[in-house]
Amino acid sequence: MQVLCTRENLLYGVQVVQRAVSSKTTMPVLSGILLRTANNRLLLTATDLELGINVSVPVQVMEEGSTVIQSKFFSELVRRLPDTPIEISMEPGTKSVTINYSPSKTSINSMDPEEFPVVPELENSSCISLNSSTFKSMVKQTTFATAPDENRPIFTGVLLLVDQREIKMVATDTHRLAFRTGVVESPLDEPWQAIIPGKTLNEVSKLIKEEDEIITIVPTNNQVMFKFGEISLISRLIDGQFPNHTQVIPKSCKTKVRVGTKALLDSVERASLLAREGSNVIKLVIQDNTLVITSNSPDLGKAHEELSIEIDGEETQIAFNSRYLIDALKAIDSEEIMLELSGSLSPGVIRPMETNNYLYLILPVRTN
Amino acid sequence: MQVLCTRENLLYGVQVVQRAVSSKTTMPVLSGILLRTANNRLLLTATDLELGINVSVPVQVMEEGSTVIQSKFFSELVRRLPDTPIEISMEPGTKSVTINYSPSKTSINSMDPEEFPVVPELENSSCISLNSSTFKSMVKQTTFATAPDENRPIFTGVLLLVDQREIKMVATDTHRLAFRTGVVESPLDEPWQAIIPGKTLNEVSKLIKEEDEIITIVPTNNQVMFKFGEISLISRLIDGQFPNHTQVIPKSCKTKVRVGTKALLDSVERASLLAREGSNVIKLVIQDNTLVITSNSPDLGKAHEELSIEIDGEETQIAFNSRYLIDALKAIDSEEIMLELSGSLSPGVIRPMETNNYLYLILPVRTN
Repeated sequence: MQVLCTRENLLYGVQVVQRAVSSKTTMPVLSGILLRTANNRLLLTATDLELGINVSVPVQVMEEGSTVIQSKFFSELVRRLPDTPIEISMEPGTKSVTINYSPSKTSINSMDPEEFPVVPELENSSCISLNSSTFKSMVKQTTFATAPDENRPIFTGVLLLVDQREIKMVATDTHRLAFRTGVVESPLDEPWQAIIPGKTLNEVSKLIKEEDEIITIVPTNNQVMFKFGEISLISRLIDGQFPNHTQVIPKSCKTKVRVGTKALLDSVERASLLAREGSNVIKLVIQDNTLVITSNSPDLGKAHEELSIEIDGEETQIAFNSRYLIDALKAIDSEEIMLELSGSLSPGVIRPMETNNYLYLILPVRTN
Repeated sequence: MQVLCTRENLLYGVQVVQRAVSSKTTMPVLSGILLRTANNRLLLTATDLELGINVSVPVQVMEEGSTVIQSKFFSELVRRLPDTPIEISMEPGTKSVTINYSPSKTSINSMDPEEFPVVPELENSSCISLNSSTFKSMVKQTTFATAPDENRPIFTGVLLLVDQREIKMVATDTHRLAFRTGVVESPLDEPWQAIIPGKTLNEVSKLIKEEDEIITIVPTNNQVMFKFGEISLISRLIDGQFPNHTQVIPKSCKTKVRVGTKALLDSVERASLLAREGSNVIKLVIQDNTLVITSNSPDLGKAHEELSIEIDGEETQIAFNSRYLIDALKAIDSEEIMLELSGSLSPGVIRPMETNNYLYLILPVRTN
């Protein structure tokens, strides 16, 4: 193997794939990045067996070949390379890869590319095409509501449903539920649904740098591939039955409260500083076109936050875990939200005022 | 106590003093910030008994008074306050302080200001005045060479010497020594020297925001005060005998190597990636107007870095702990440095080319 490339391209490739490198693994080869030549490009691949990332960068191939280099060390080195032409070469019959940036060079012990698991490019006659900004916004508004707890795997995932031109993402940790809809660029032949790890969606979102590029989602039975630019990312799907979100979303409500998103977020954040440690409970009282938020920590003190609101319906009060409110208010871009309540024992629903593509449901906390 | 202030001023004051708040303390009152009114200003004070910071911010005092508020919570709250007039008040006879940002408010349980240790403003007829940029540069070039190990307290400090208009800072961890000189604005009546904790100097440096303001150092027997802007910082001094730095600095050398600072730093950083784990040893060979830096890690591979240099004197070779080289090269602003060597067993000396106010000495590593 012998290729010539720029520091910039090599660094880009390494930074993309290293997100999939396994930090804890019993297979040493998974701590590495697979490098392969093909058509005057260098293909870089990393995987932790759940998530695999391929990226190709332009290089000049003098001799075809492949190798595996330890990721952490390789990325540290590439980051510090000078802006000169960089030659990566491997003497046949040796395990040593030489990175030459004349007059200096570094030789690295490599691993056997035959041992590296195959990260396939998935094929499917029918794909989902989606605007990258829409995708990023959908991910931002849903993945935070997944559960971190690996003991109940389906709640660590986001349910993705595609039917005709409609795409939906649903996430819940059983205390709150986030639901977001979007429009795909081209309709799918048949409806498809799958539970995708929240981690996968966040990684895809972080790797998308361009606004308004097209991201292609290739669905299969047990894996999904995301393609954009020169990157493809393949992830396992999560098995299991996702709770029926249509059943839990209330059809009506008794109180509608219209309030500024930023003002509510600020008040909830301040009040949460004085919520009893561990439970994060804050109380909302809706009365006289005013929303009063209170919290009380016997050790620290108590908060009393007042906001002007527009009420439609009954006066009411309810208690929430402040963290669940903060998460949603941070994810909503709309300047105002509608908070829909039906007494202190029924779930609250938050919707942005300026669009009807998002809904966030939050269970109340029972207080004495 | 009753004062009216802006969020901006209050936030500034809290962020300045919280650097001295004790994170681990058996005295609960030290987890707090002391607030006191005086002459239409609010004085904020925090201390961990080794380091104390006072700052005063403009407020409107309606009623004089003082209180102590838990620092972590108070700074979190102030950071989130709206940009409205903020009233801090305390009902006589209660322990509750109310932060009022109409129409909302937060009440905080306070601590007894009588229990808060006094952080004095030191007085001395003779003070040292220094340009803040000079001070920051001196701190940056010396404190990194202190030892982190509290078992040998003097090496955690920087020796400060002032004589007439000359100020010197010396730091060493016994493996390397950094020595920097500067000029003070006004001469001191009598020479003064003290060992100041490296942490203190770093805190002062971080708190200085203005370029070219005057910082005043007030020396006493067992404490030192730094004054700048509305801030005063008082620190204990470290007892003990600092090693004689003039004895260890070589008077002559056998080899002088002139090399670009950035190029050398980059090469040393790359080579250090392949230095044997734990020992960080890299080898420098000076021959034929070339500096070759090599390192070798049996697990990862080996580096060979080449740099064009100007040699004056004997060809030679030497091994260093790469970390000690990197620290110094990062602290030097000069585009080129002179590396002075006298064989592989004598200390190396680094001096910036463009100024003679800095010297860095580094002990070699013996290799087989």
